[in-house]
Amino acid sequence: MNQKDTEKKLSAEKAVEIIEYGMTVGLGTGSTVYFAIKKLGERVKDGLKIKTVSTSNSSTDLARSFGIEPLSIDNAGIIDINIDGADEADRSFNGIKGGGGALLFEKIVALNSKKNIWIIDSDKLVNQLGNYPLPVEVIPFGYKRVFGILKKYDPAVRMKDDGFYKTDSGNLIFDLHLNKIEDPQTLDAELKQITGVVETGLFIGIADTIIIGRKDGTEILIK
Amino acid sequence: MNQKDTEKKLSAEKAVEIIEYGMTVGLGTGSTVYFAIKKLGERVKDGLKIKTVSTSNSSTDLARSFGIEPLSIDNAGIIDINIDGADEADRSFNGIKGGGGALLFEKIVALNSKKNIWIIDSDKLVNQLGNYPLPVEVIPFGYKRVFGILKKYDPAVRMKDDGFYKTDSGNLIFDLHLNKIEDPQTLDAELKQITGVVETGLFIGIADTIIIGRKDGTEILIK
Repeated sequence: MNQKDTEKKLSAEKAVEIIEYGMTVGLGTGSTVYFAIKKLGERVKDGLKIKTVSTSNSSTDLARSFGIEPLSIDNAGIIDINIDGADEADRSFNGIKGGGGALLFEKIVALNSKKNIWIIDSDKLVNQLGNYPLPVEVIPFGYKRVFGILKKYDPAVRMKDDGFYKTDSGNLIFDLHLNKIEDPQTLDAELKQITGVVETGLFIGIADTIIIGRKDGTEILIK
Repeated sequence: MNQKDTEKKLSAEKAVEIIEYGMTVGLGTGSTVYFAIKKLGERVKDGLKIKTVSTSNSSTDLARSFGIEPLSIDNAGIIDINIDGADEADRSFNGIKGGGGALLFEKIVALNSKKNIWIIDSDKLVNQLGNYPLPVEVIPFGYKRVFGILKKYDPAVRMKDDGFYKTDSGNLIFDLHLNKIEDPQTLDAELKQITGVVETGLFIGIADTIIIGRKDGTEILIK
């Protein structure tokens, strides 16, 4: 296992330690969450009883492969702890998510959760957000107009195989190449006002714990 | 024909008079637009050459039945004139739309149009918006949280047959019972900030012409 994967696994397994009998757990999406779902599956096999809510079709499939059957979000009630990754996180507990394309459901699950834990490898902790392209979920109908409005942010329509990448809601992802985000809140509000924008990958004030995998263990930031 | 339908037809046909050879025309949705599409079909049969863009599957079907084949919005370029209805309109050119459920595509088409004409019967011209329930398009995933946030606005999830009504994008409609909307702009911005809200039925500063059907003709408001 390379160092990045070692860090991902360390942070993921540290988060899973916090999960207790009877909890409802949010399952994020991505390569770090993979290790969390795998570890949860082992604990469930050992007798842990939990309910789960998934943020994507891919995480639902993954959970099932480890013997966990997620509930529908609207049948699950309040989620106790949501475990998710982030593409970038800063020490103010803001971050960029959506590299995996699941930002909308991830944000909805996060907002339905009492506690949000982000698990990241050490490269993802940054001083300022924006080096990672900011994903924005956009309605396909009339997307060219939104693309035009966002031109100043150097957007790229995310592709997959020969066509546009589609989210689990059937929408497009525009990746904005911002380099630096001076004021995440204002940018998020500005983007959300645009007709055709469904959601942004800016997660502001949502995480309350960040577990950073390091080569020799984990660093935990608590708000 | 009852008086309401007479008014709808008068306003619709007045709008269609403005359409000229070679224009790209937006086709709204609803019972008033029905008369516009029918009249456009007659003019096309008589030799008028136009391109059209539709705001809903139902208007596309209607247009086809009158011999008009709408283009995809992203192949149509800028729309010269968009003809649409409104559920309520005030003399400041603000309105509520979405009674027919097509508010998202209607707003996108409107924002792609150089000129927006609303055609309404006289009952729909109001002094203050809000008596008509305000439709808001909401992502189904996690909709109960959004419903909880909007509780203060007396929301109802729109139903169809035995289940939830679904928009052409597969989303839900919440109808908010506000009675009076004091500040449409602020309300619209507030609603759009909620994660899970895709779009609202508040159309602010979009229409530039309102054609009101009256029993003896039409009244035209121009911004």
